[in-house]
Amino acid sequence: MQPDNRRSPGAEPPELSDRRISPDLETTEVAAGRRPGTRYVRIVRPFAHEFRRRARGELVATERVLEPQTPGRKLLAALRQVLIGRRIPTERETHERVGILRGLALLSPDAISSAAYGPEEAMRILALAGVAALGLTLPVAAAVVVLLAIVTTSYRQTVRAYPSGGGSYIVASDNLGSLPGLVAAAALLTDYVLTVAVSVTAGVAAVVSAFPELFPHRVSLAVLAVVLLALANLRGIRESATIFLLPVYLYISSMLALVVLGLYQVITGTLGPYQPPAAAAESGFGVEALSAFLVLRAFASGSVALTGVEAIANGVPIFKPPEGEHAARALAVLAFIYGSILLGIGFLAARLQVIPDPAEVETVLSQIARTLADQSWFYYLIQFVTSMILLIAANTAFADFPRLASILAKDRYFPRFFARRGDRLAFDNGIILLATLAMVLIVAFGGSVTQLVPLYAVGVFLAFTLSQAGMVVHWRRRREPGWRLRAALNGLGAVVTGIVTVIVAIAKFTLGAWVVVIVIPTLVIIMLAIYRHYRFVEDMLTLEYPQVKVQVPHRLRVVVPVAWADRAALRALHIAQQVSPDVAAVHVSIDPAEARRLRGRWAELGITVPLVILESPYRAVVEPLLAYINALRKEDPETPVVVVLPEFVPRHPWQYLLHNLTALRLKLGLFFKPNVIVVDVPYHLEPVLKTSPEKLGQDPTAIDTARPGG
Amino acid sequence: MQPDNRRSPGAEPPELSDRRISPDLETTEVAAGRRPGTRYVRIVRPFAHEFRRRARGELVATERVLEPQTPGRKLLAALRQVLIGRRIPTERETHERVGILRGLALLSPDAISSAAYGPEEAMRILALAGVAALGLTLPVAAAVVVLLAIVTTSYRQTVRAYPSGGGSYIVASDNLGSLPGLVAAAALLTDYVLTVAVSVTAGVAAVVSAFPELFPHRVSLAVLAVVLLALANLRGIRESATIFLLPVYLYISSMLALVVLGLYQVITGTLGPYQPPAAAAESGFGVEALSAFLVLRAFASGSVALTGVEAIANGVPIFKPPEGEHAARALAVLAFIYGSILLGIGFLAARLQVIPDPAEVETVLSQIARTLADQSWFYYLIQFVTSMILLIAANTAFADFPRLASILAKDRYFPRFFARRGDRLAFDNGIILLATLAMVLIVAFGGSVTQLVPLYAVGVFLAFTLSQAGMVVHWRRRREPGWRLRAALNGLGAVVTGIVTVIVAIAKFTLGAWVVVIVIPTLVIIMLAIYRHYRFVEDMLTLEYPQVKVQVPHRLRVVVPVAWADRAALRALHIAQQVSPDVAAVHVSIDPAEARRLRGRWAELGITVPLVILESPYRAVVEPLLAYINALRKEDPETPVVVVLPEFVPRHPWQYLLHNLTALRLKLGLFFKPNVIVVDVPYHLEPVLKTSPEKLGQDPTAIDTARPGG
Repeated sequence: MQPDNRRSPGAEPPELSDRRISPDLETTEVAAGRRPGTRYVRIVRPFAHEFRRRARGELVATERVLEPQTPGRKLLAALRQVLIGRRIPTERETHERVGILRGLALLSPDAISSAAYGPEEAMRILALAGVAALGLTLPVAAAVVVLLAIVTTSYRQTVRAYPSGGGSYIVASDNLGSLPGLVAAAALLTDYVLTVAVSVTAGVAAVVSAFPELFPHRVSLAVLAVVLLALANLRGIRESATIFLLPVYLYISSMLALVVLGLYQVITGTLGPYQPPAAAAESGFGVEALSAFLVLRAFASGSVALTGVEAIANGVPIFKPPEGEHAARALAVLAFIYGSILLGIGFLAARLQVIPDPAEVETVLSQIARTLADQSWFYYLIQFVTSMILLIAANTAFADFPRLASILAKDRYFPRFFARRGDRLAFDNGIILLATLAMVLIVAFGGSVTQLVPLYAVGVFLAFTLSQAGMVVHWRRRREPGWRLRAALNGLGAVVTGIVTVIVAIAKFTLGAWVVVIVIPTLVIIMLAIYRHYRFVEDMLTLEYPQVKVQVPHRLRVVVPVAWADRAALRALHIAQQVSPDVAAVHVSIDPAEARRLRGRWAELGITVPLVILESPYRAVVEPLLAYINALRKEDPETPVVVVLPEFVPRHPWQYLLHNLTALRLKLGLFFKPNVIVVDVPYHLEPVLKTSPEKLGQDPTAIDTARPGG
Repeated sequence: MQPDNRRSPGAEPPELSDRRISPDLETTEVAAGRRPGTRYVRIVRPFAHEFRRRARGELVATERVLEPQTPGRKLLAALRQVLIGRRIPTERETHERVGILRGLALLSPDAISSAAYGPEEAMRILALAGVAALGLTLPVAAAVVVLLAIVTTSYRQTVRAYPSGGGSYIVASDNLGSLPGLVAAAALLTDYVLTVAVSVTAGVAAVVSAFPELFPHRVSLAVLAVVLLALANLRGIRESATIFLLPVYLYISSMLALVVLGLYQVITGTLGPYQPPAAAAESGFGVEALSAFLVLRAFASGSVALTGVEAIANGVPIFKPPEGEHAARALAVLAFIYGSILLGIGFLAARLQVIPDPAEVETVLSQIARTLADQSWFYYLIQFVTSMILLIAANTAFADFPRLASILAKDRYFPRFFARRGDRLAFDNGIILLATLAMVLIVAFGGSVTQLVPLYAVGVFLAFTLSQAGMVVHWRRRREPGWRLRAALNGLGAVVTGIVTVIVAIAKFTLGAWVVVIVIPTLVIIMLAIYRHYRFVEDMLTLEYPQVKVQVPHRLRVVVPVAWADRAALRALHIAQQVSPDVAAVHVSIDPAEARRLRGRWAELGITVPLVILESPYRAVVEPLLAYINALRKEDPETPVVVVLPEFVPRHPWQYLLHNLTALRLKLGLFFKPNVIVVDVPYHLEPVLKTSPEKLGQDPTAIDTARPGG
C-alpha cells in the first residue's frame, strides 16, 4: 500500500529529499548568510549528548534525555533516585539461577509463613462452639496437611511439565482454553492482593503480640510496611535469594525448635502453666453448636495455609537446569517441612488448650511461644522471625502480581501499561496497583487478620482446581508412557481442591467470601472487554485487510477562530495558510459593535483571509463554533476540517485560567467529531519576560515573536 | 500589516478565492460525479436551522446551536431549564426604572434588615460586663444612628454627583487613583460575601426563634437558603421591585408598629413581665470590667447596621430621572425610617432589660416581640417578615457582588469570565463564586451570627472612607459654587467613617477581623497581578508596536511519532504530507527486534516518508521524543516544528485509558516548548462499530476509513 501515491505518483516531494539527511540529525547544512552569495556548510550536532548515532536513521537515546529541566522536577527526580535508585538500561536485565536451598528461600515464604495465622484462624472458628471444641484443632491441622500432600504431589507433576513456569493462568489457558485461564488469572490476582493484606497484618500482629502497646497503631504499621515493600520492589530486588536466605532458614529452624521444645516439655512433663489472654475470659465463646459445618468452616479457615504453593509453580524458571526436577524436589522439601510445622503447632495448641485472643492483641503462636519459653530471647526471636517471614511472603505477591499483570497485558487482557518495565526494570504499574489495593483492604478491615481471612483462599483453590484440571487434559493429549497415572494424580488434586473451593466459598460466604465471588467474574468480564477492545482496534488499524483503503484526504479546510485581530490571531492565520490555501477566520460575536470594529480592523490590516462573523444572541461562544464546524463537515464529509487554535502558554500556571477556558471547551467538543483535526499553536508569553514591551524589537533574539523583516 | 504578503505578494491563493463563497456557507457547489463529465451545482444549506444569514459573511446563531445532543446532556439541559429557566437573548435586556417607593423596596433591605442583628450584637458585647451594662444599649444605638445620619448626609452628595452609579470602587478610583479603588473593591467584595453569610444566618435565627426545634438544622437551612438565592439570581430576577414591595413595606410597618406598641405599653404601664431565655441564667455574664474599650467594641458591633447604605449608591441608575435627586431623597427616607427602628429597638431592649441568648436559640428581637405581643399572630408576623427581609438583603449582595466583579473583570482586575453574562443575562460566575464563599463561611462558623459579625463591617467602613475621601477630592477638583460646604460634609463623613474603620478593626481584631485585614490586601495583590498579566498579554498581542513584526514561518517541519505501520500512522502521515513536504516519522523503540520489523514493514509498504528510530535503553517513550523535537528546534529555531499525533477516540470513555496516555504526556511536554505546534488527528473507532471487521470494505459508507479508490 503506497501512501499518497495518487497525488505525487512515485516521486518524493523535492524538499523532502533535500532534507533527507536531517531527520536523523547527524549533520545539518546551515547557510550562514552573512556575506551574500557565500554558503557555509557546517556540521551541527545539536544533541550529541542526548543521542548516539548507531546507523542512518537509528539513534540511541542516552540517559541525558531523561534529565529533569525544572527545579521542581529535579527535586522530584532526586527524591525518586534516593527512594528507588538509578535507572537500569534494558540490556542489563539478568536472570539469577538458583539451586534448591536458595530456591526455597525465594519461593517458600508465602507458604510457610501461613503457619503464623492458618491454625489460629481454624481455632477461632472451633472456639465458636466453646473452648472444648478446640480439642479438634489437631485433627483439622492434620486434614490441612493431607490436603497439602495431595496438592504438592499434583503440583510436582505440573512443574516437571512446565519448566518455563507453570502458573495456573498458563496451565489453564494452555489446556482448558482462554476463559478458564482468565478465571484462574482473576482468582490469582485477587488472592495476591489478599496475600499482601493478610501477610502484612499478620506480620504486624506478631510484632504487636510482643509489644502490645503498639496495638492502636496496627493499621498505620501495616500501611507503612506495604509502602516499604512497594518501594523495595520498585527498586527491583533482584538479589533477593541472598537476602532472604538467612531469615527464611532462621524462621524454619526456630519454628522446628519451638515444636521440638514443646514435645520435650510434654515428654518430660515440664510444660509450664498456660495463661489465657485477658479478653478471652469476658468473651462469648460457645455461642454456636459444634456441627459438621462448623468443622468444615474451621478446615476452610485453616486451608489458607496452602496459599503459597502456587509460588513455586510460577517460579520454576529461576531454578538451575533441569528446572522442573529441581522445582519438584523443592516442592517435596517444602511440603515436608511445612507439614511438620503445621502439625507441631496444631499439636501444641491443642495440648496447651490455647484460646485465640478475641481482641486480636496476642496471636496463638505468641501464646505458645510465651508458655514454652517465657519472655526469654527465644520468645522474641520467634516473634521477630515470624514477622520477617510474613513480610517476605507479602513480597512474593509483589513479584507475582505484577508479573501476572504483565503477562495478561501482553496477551491484551490488561491495559498495555502493565507490561511496561519501569526505571529499574520492575513492572512499576503492577506494583503500585497491588500496593494501593492492599492498603485499601488493610484500612477497610481495620488491620484485622480475622476479618481479612474469610476473603482469602477462595481464589487460590479455584486457581489450583483449574490448573490441575488443565494438567489432566495435558496428559490426555500427550498420551506419553505412564500418562494415566499422572492424569489420575492430577485428577485427584483437581477433585480435592475443587471440593475445597466449594467448601471454602460456602463456609465463608457470608463472612466475606461473597466479595471474592463477585470480584472474580467481574474481573473476568473487564479483562474480556479490554481484550475485545484491543483486538477491535488492531483489526481496525491493520493494513492486512487489503479491501479497506486508508482514507487519503485530497485537501484540508482550515478554520481559525479569532477573538481579535492581534498577533496571536495573525500567527495562527499564517500557520493556517501554510497548512492549506483554504482558510476562513471565524469570530463569534457577543457584541455587534465589536464585530463591526473587527471587520474594520480586518480591512485596515489588509488581511486576505475571509472573516466570518457568527453573531451569538445567547452569548454562547463554543456552541456556535461547533455548529459552524459541524456544518462544514456535513457540507463535505470527505475533506477534513482543520481548526487552528492559538493557545496561551502563561508564565505561571495560575494564569492559565485567565485565557484558555474557551479553547479548552472547544477542543473537548471537537474531540468527538470525526474528521476534525485540531492544531494547537502555543503562543508563548514566557520569553518576552526578559524584556519590557518598550524594548521589543531591539533585541530580536530575546523573543520568538521578534523577527526583523518579517 | 499584511500577513504572509512576502510569500504571495498581493495575490490571494487561488483555491481561497474559488471557495470564497463557502466560508459563510450560504451556498456550496457540490459535484456529484455519478455520470462522468457531468457537474451538478446544488444549493445546500447544511445548517439552515442553526444559523440565519444576515449579510455576506455574517451569520446569526439560533438557539438550535445550543441544543444538547447526547441523552446525558439533554437531561442536564432539562434540569437546568427547570431550575434556571429558558435562555434569554442579549437584545431582550431591559432596564427597569423606578420611583422612590419602589426604589427603596429594591435597595433598602440590606440596610434595614441589619436592625435584626445589629443591636443584638452590640448588646452581646455589653453583656460581657454584666447584665447592668445592658443599660448602655440605648446610648450605643443612638451613637449608631448619629453615624447613620453623617454617612447618609455624605452619601446624598455622592449619589447626586454620580447619577450613573456611585459605588465606592468607582468613586475611589475616579478621584483617588486605581490602588485606593482596588482597596475599596476588595473591601466591598469581602463584605458582600459576609452580607450573604450574616443575613442568611440571621434570617434562619429569626425562624429558629419562633420554632426552636429547628435549631440543630440551622447550618443546613442557611446553606439551602444560599442555594435557593443563587438559583433565583441565576434565573435573573429582573422583576424584583414588584416582588419586594410587599415584604419590604410589611417589614417596615410591622417594625414601626412593634416600636409604637412598646411605647404604648410603656406609657400605659401595661408592659408585660420579661422572661429571659433559659441559657441566660447559667451563662457567665460579667466576666469583663465595663471599660471605654468595651463600649467602643459594642459600638463597633452595632455599626454593622450601616452595611447596607452602599447599596443605594450602587443602585442610582435604577431611579427615574433625575436619578441623583431621587436617590438622595430615597437615602433620606431610608435613614429616617431606619434610624427610628434602631432607636426604638434600642429603647425597648434597654427598658425590658432583655438579655441576649448565649445559646443563640432566640434573638433579642424575638424576645422583645414575645414580651410585647405574647405568642400572638403579630409575634409570628414579626419573625416571618424579619426572616424575609434578611433573605432579600442577602439577595442585594447577589446583585452587587457579581456586578462589581463584572466591572472589575472589564477593567482587567478580575478573570475575564466574570464579565460574561449567562443564559439569563445574569453574571453567572460571580453568583456561583459568591454563593460558594458564603456557604463556606456559614459552614465554617457553624451558622452562628455572633461568630460571623466580627468579620463584618471592616470592609464596608473602609469602602465608605475611601468613597467619601474620593468625594472631597471630587469637589476640590470641580470647584463648583458651594464646593467648600460639600467637601466639608464629605470630609466629615470620611473622617468619622475612617475613625469607625479603625475602631472596628481594632475592637474586633482578635475576634476575627484579622481575617479581613489579611484578605483585603491579598485580594488587592491578586487583582493587581491579574491586571498586570492581562495588560502584558495585550501589549504582547497588539499590532500597535510597529517595530515588532509578527513572526511569519517560512515553512513547517513535521514530525509524526509512529508506534507501528498501521492505518492510524498512515493517516497521520498523509495529513502530515498535506501540511508540509518536510515530514519525518519517528519511532521510539524499546525492543530492537520490533524496530527492525517496523523498518522492514516500512520498506514493504513503500512508504516514502523517512523513518527515524530512536532506541530507548531506559524504556522511556516520551522523553526521547521530546529530546528529538527539542534538537530539531535548536537546529533551526525559526522554523516551527509540527508534531502530528493520532489520538484514539474510543467508543466508551473508559477505553481512553487504554490508548492515549503516551500522547497525553507528550502533549503536556510539548505545550511548554516555544515554536512547537501540535496537530491532534482524532482516530475515530466509533463508526466501525456498526459493522464487523469481516464486513469492512463491503459497505464503504459505514466507516470513515473506507474510501474506494484511495
